[in-house]
Amino acid sequence: MKLKFGIVGGGGGFIGNVHRHGALMDDLAVLTAGCFSRNADTNHKYAKRWGVADSNRIYADYEEMAAVESAREDGIDFVSITTPNDTHYPIVKSFLQHGIHVMCDKPLALTAEQGRELAALAKEKDLLCGVSYTYTGYAMVRQAREMIDAGEIGKITCIQGEYPQEWLAVSLVSERSEQAVWRQDPKRSGASGCCADIGTHIECLIAKMTGLHPRRVIARFDRIPENIPLETNAQMLVEFEGNIPGMIWASQIAIGHETELNIRIFGEKGSVEWSHLRPWELRVTRINQPPQIYTTNRDYLAPSARELCRLPSGHIEGFYEAFGNLYHSFCMNLIAKKTGADPGTFQYPTVEDGVRGIEFVDACLASNAQNNIWIKVGQ
Amino acid sequence: MKLKFGIVGGGGGFIGNVHRHGALMDDLAVLTAGCFSRNADTNHKYAKRWGVADSNRIYADYEEMAAVESAREDGIDFVSITTPNDTHYPIVKSFLQHGIHVMCDKPLALTAEQGRELAALAKEKDLLCGVSYTYTGYAMVRQAREMIDAGEIGKITCIQGEYPQEWLAVSLVSERSEQAVWRQDPKRSGASGCCADIGTHIECLIAKMTGLHPRRVIARFDRIPENIPLETNAQMLVEFEGNIPGMIWASQIAIGHETELNIRIFGEKGSVEWSHLRPWELRVTRINQPPQIYTTNRDYLAPSARELCRLPSGHIEGFYEAFGNLYHSFCMNLIAKKTGADPGTFQYPTVEDGVRGIEFVDACLASNAQNNIWIKVGQ
Amino acid sequence: MKLKFGIVGGGGGFIGNVHRHGALMDDLAVLTAGCFSRNADTNHKYAKRWGVADSNRIYADYEEMAAVESAREDGIDFVSITTPNDTHYPIVKSFLQHGIHVMCDKPLALTAEQGRELAALAKEKDLLCGVSYTYTGYAMVRQAREMIDAGEIGKITCIQGEYPQEWLAVSLVSERSEQAVWRQDPKRSGASGCCADIGTHIECLIAKMTGLHPRRVIARFDRIPENIPLETNAQMLVEFEGNIPGMIWASQIAIGHETELNIRIFGEKGSVEWSHLRPWELRVTRINQPPQIYTTNRDYLAPSARELCRLPSGHIEGFYEAFGNLYHSFCMNLIAKKTGADPGTFQYPTVEDGVRGIEFVDACLASNAQNNIWIKVGQ
Amino acid sequence: MKLKFGIVGGGGGFIGNVHRHGALMDDLAVLTAGCFSRNADTNHKYAKRWGVADSNRIYADYEEMAAVESAREDGIDFVSITTPNDTHYPIVKSFLQHGIHVMCDKPLALTAEQGRELAALAKEKDLLCGVSYTYTGYAMVRQAREMIDAGEIGKITCIQGEYPQEWLAVSLVSERSEQAVWRQDPKRSGASGCCADIGTHIECLIAKMTGLHPRRVIARFDRIPENIPLETNAQMLVEFEGNIPGMIWASQIAIGHETELNIRIFGEKGSVEWSHLRPWELRVTRINQPPQIYTTNRDYLAPSARELCRLPSGHIEGFYEAFGNLYHSFCMNLIAKKTGADPGTFQYPTVEDGVRGIEFVDACLASNAQNNIWIKVGQ
Repeated sequence: MKLKFGIVGGGGGFIGNVHRHGALMDDLAVLTAGCFSRNADTNHKYAKRWGVADSNRIYADYEEMAAVESAREDGIDFVSITTPNDTHYPIVKSFLQHGIHVMCDKPLALTAEQGRELAALAKEKDLLCGVSYTYTGYAMVRQAREMIDAGEIGKITCIQGEYPQEWLAVSLVSERSEQAVWRQDPKRSGASGCCADIGTHIECLIAKMTGLHPRRVIARFDRIPENIPLETNAQMLVEFEGNIPGMIWASQIAIGHETELNIRIFGEKGSVEWSHLRPWELRVTRINQPPQIYTTNRDYLAPSARELCRLPSGHIEGFYEAFGNLYHSFCMNLIAKKTGADPGTFQYPTVEDGVRGIEFVDACLASNAQNNIWIKVGQ
Repeated sequence: MKLKFGIVGGGGGFIGNVHRHGALMDDLAVLTAGCFSRNADTNHKYAKRWGVADSNRIYADYEEMAAVESAREDGIDFVSITTPNDTHYPIVKSFLQHGIHVMCDKPLALTAEQGRELAALAKEKDLLCGVSYTYTGYAMVRQAREMIDAGEIGKITCIQGEYPQEWLAVSLVSERSEQAVWRQDPKRSGASGCCADIGTHIECLIAKMTGLHPRRVIARFDRIPENIPLETNAQMLVEFEGNIPGMIWASQIAIGHETELNIRIFGEKGSVEWSHLRPWELRVTRINQPPQIYTTNRDYLAPSARELCRLPSGHIEGFYEAFGNLYHSFCMNLIAKKTGADPGTFQYPTVEDGVRGIEFVDACLASNAQNNIWIKVGQ
Repeated sequence: MKLKFGIVGGGGGFIGNVHRHGALMDDLAVLTAGCFSRNADTNHKYAKRWGVADSNRIYADYEEMAAVESAREDGIDFVSITTPNDTHYPIVKSFLQHGIHVMCDKPLALTAEQGRELAALAKEKDLLCGVSYTYTGYAMVRQAREMIDAGEIGKITCIQGEYPQEWLAVSLVSERSEQAVWRQDPKRSGASGCCADIGTHIECLIAKMTGLHPRRVIARFDRIPENIPLETNAQMLVEFEGNIPGMIWASQIAIGHETELNIRIFGEKGSVEWSHLRPWELRVTRINQPPQIYTTNRDYLAPSARELCRLPSGHIEGFYEAFGNLYHSFCMNLIAKKTGADPGTFQYPTVEDGVRGIEFVDACLASNAQNNIWIKVGQ
Repeated sequence: MKLKFGIVGGGGGFIGNVHRHGALMDDLAVLTAGCFSRNADTNHKYAKRWGVADSNRIYADYEEMAAVESAREDGIDFVSITTPNDTHYPIVKSFLQHGIHVMCDKPLALTAEQGRELAALAKEKDLLCGVSYTYTGYAMVRQAREMIDAGEIGKITCIQGEYPQEWLAVSLVSERSEQAVWRQDPKRSGASGCCADIGTHIECLIAKMTGLHPRRVIARFDRIPENIPLETNAQMLVEFEGNIPGMIWASQIAIGHETELNIRIFGEKGSVEWSHLRPWELRVTRINQPPQIYTTNRDYLAPSARELCRLPSGHIEGFYEAFGNLYHSFCMNLIAKKTGADPGTFQYPTVEDGVRGIEFVDACLASNAQNNIWIKVGQ
């Protein structure tokens, strides 16, 4: 079966189209409806471009879309929400309330309270609600988890995560300023800048790679350059479950780095390290042995990692394909819900992951505000 | 406008789906017809999966498809040919004869004579005929060409190209044997193994990066392991136009290398180097200056290179997206033909590039057969 | 002129011989005396091997050596101290008191009080007293400083330093256990393990690269595996002068990493990054430009960096040669003191650097002991 | 025991001092005599700097040195020859005739005939005669050989060697022109430029890593830029013993590369790859397994490779230390000759290796002159 889905947003920025490609990639869904922009012309332009032929299913606002689609017998099965951050909460809520499954761009909401409300709503309504933490869709991230779960690196001893970017610093001297504006607007981005925007990617990746969540944090936020409203550099000491020490660094002013997301997990018997600089690799070291470079789609991988590979090893799958893996899992789970089919092993990030991300940011904000003391993460 | 296209092949292997994604990626075409497999069940399974709803446009054989589609008023604008190598020639010929534009998987044909016939036919019929040399679709390959054309590395002095793979060696000890079988069958692959399969990628990439073509070659082919029908290791001295020395190495038994396609172009004033290990980078060195690492989608790139980037710098675009760039150019040129619109700067590889690839292989075969003497490339 | 020098220690471990080679490398000094081991046989074996011919100048203990050499008209100009950490303080003190210049292996002493006493003593006696922070001797470390001082990266915004090693984890499962024993003995190593052993290298390198010193720290120490006496993993938030945020991570249980010392300095206009994985390189990025890879002994380097290169670019100089650069500067300064000659630009790390290292460790120890609050560094 | 040695040359260029350090590094030899320059002032300046105290042992010409030293009861055991290429043959000959062992800088001589004469003379006189192919002294080069000999990569199938440098191109636009002059003077360098200068390093390294020698070559030489007397770019197809295909590329105009010596050895069961970009690593791949990164001085290395390591893993040993390993072996063999002691496993390159290098160049010269046909290497 093929699922029907709609998109809210997408007629601006690049991420809407990434969601669309992700949902279409493995032929599990068909784009059937949308509210692509508040601007009517843009809305219809994208509807045409993306092949939404039925003009009754091109909506001027998301509430109408949620209401009408939920009332149709052939209404959409799920919706992808790709609007600016501050609008996620009301839109997700609206679709959930109308009984439509949701895949929402990160972040789920601007406050943990909102997030928990959405999680409860999804649970109450028995609906799938995913949050698109892109990098968790890479095959080698999954391979890391399989190896850790199998005990290959032993008890985890230390976790180092970082995500240096330069784009915000660069945008001040180049043409790419539009995104910089809204990313730095607390009304649209929330109270945290880079910690919320990219720090949460680190937190979620570590959780997916290890199964471990932060228990408490010390965070220092800096606004660089000085006249900027939200932090652009965030440095954290993080204590994970089991008293495991960790460090997280997120920066948008790290000149010389584009999306250099690096996660290193150390254990008593070995380590696994993943870098977005070469996401098809996993560096694996067993104690007192030479480091090994695992790559995608090889015989020696865990089946659940290999399932995330579409191309022969060495043929690069990137950002779109990682997104495709999130949607693949989301769709398979939705189909499974409807038909009882096997949803597969890999799991897309859920509304609970989304809540955890916000709780992590909230704890960091509190630590930063209180002279960098330890703050408990979550309730 | 959106073009209508069909696919021949695709119901086996992975490359058919790569073509499909490439053609769909930028919403310039819609899949309307197909002959996905000689097996009827497979044919219909893929038609359903890929959304070809009209059963009249699912064809049991390609000749019928060419005939019927060309006779329909709403027939397909172009066809993607993704069948095994030995079938390319008759299928391309059939569609061209019926006046349908063609994008053919590499190689264009098994002999240069066939290739030249197809080139002449396309010219006579005034039809587009592309050959999908994937790697030419990477943005940084185009950036190299722009810099070379602008004289940034001066007069070219030396060219080094290589494409080591291990897959054929590995397939003998692992599960991936099916492809190994037909790749090693001269009836289906032609008289050359790895030189035709991947050596031509090097030759075409160099041509696209520099504008230079091989004038003569010395080639040595080795069949490793010994009992294998076609060469799996090919080493060439290549003299390019202007008496420029070059070396090309193609191997499918280079254990430890997956798709490590490396092209290094040296000039009197600098060098540019591109590696498929990190295709979003271009290593640029100006004489007596530190090497620089150019990356995708940056302000400092040439516009024609930047046009090939869909995502912000640092967000990886891979094999699918490179294919998408070939199809983008192909479709824009086809639309331009129909409407007079601007086709853009970047050019997909054409039937002439396909002929050149075969002529290169033919010269290598001849040199290898004649004790490795110099053989002129082409007529 | 050639200086005469002696060595205390060296008849065990590898570092004594590194000091000896460093002092001899540029023919500015001759080994004339020594107390190479408390074991008489070992002492004489090394005296013979290292060419100390005069048996009167082979000493059974360092105090005798200091006394006798200072009394000789042709006594040594300086002494290299390469004994275990806990003995540095009394030995340095003894030689300084006898008016002999000192180059001491890191750390200078076990407590800041001891360190400050030695600094005061050296000052009072007008003696050179160096501390061998090896990595500061690399040419590209100096290049970083020159570029930062010249304003090439603008105002510094963020500093990230790390030194992951695996050796202590490995030593528990392999043959290399002897060093592990004393490194983990608080009596011999002091109250801190890896922070003192390698964290101080990071602190000193940052100071040499930027001119900036830590003002306060939050530190978390972990003893991994659990039954170990001293911390093997240390994570620090560091605030540098001018409110600049920094992170430092030092670990001896980071399986998969040997001496992966990485320092990244970010500024408003660019960044410089140095890694011991390829110490002859400096990665330099100017804002909105491609990263550049500077290398040793090139025309484009600052003269003071180029002076530290002995070999043509691309010819690797490593650990011995970095040591040689420290001794080169030390000897040139000593010769300058004696003759008025020009000592050159590059400066070896001094007793003040040694004190700063201990003060840094003390602040980290205090923060770790007090629930990871901010602790001021130094007095 | 300590050997006594002398040096011919060294008072110019950097390589003389590298030889001196190499010979002194492990305290097996003492510099006792020398003829450091034809210029008397330079000669004495270096004698003083390098501690040759006895003015009777500072010689104005090498023939006198050979004669006088061989006549002294306490004469030198061996001599290091570090003069320009064209003088190697007469100087080596002179010392051998006087019964003095020789370590000669590469190349051994300018013609194969001269080389064979020297080899015969050394044999006749029963003297050690080494040729300092630096890179063969790296530990991981030795590790490669041990693994190949142990059958770990199976039967060798393909060999790829390259040594791109940029220095000659750069020297034309920068200050480093002096060496460029003599390197490009056929009277001083011989009939071959970069093939002799660096191509031989590749040939020798491959021999040391695999035990295999070239049987025949096709070579193409290019003089770039055009007005230059000797080839600066050399491209070779090389057939090794056992019909094994190989490629060798040597260039001194490869802008962007300093000393990027890369050797890749492929076998039926795996591969080993060594790069001078990170000489303390060996990349090892076993078929259908992830590549592994072996590093220096680890438990898992072969003993004979580990013997070549002086420092703990991760502490970089470079060019000087590789030279030290050549001299270590040379001295141990000389001591063994005198005392019967065990010379160790690792073997310095000998006069036979030197002859092979010249024969390789001669064959390349002949192939280049004869329209690039196959030419047999050696007699």
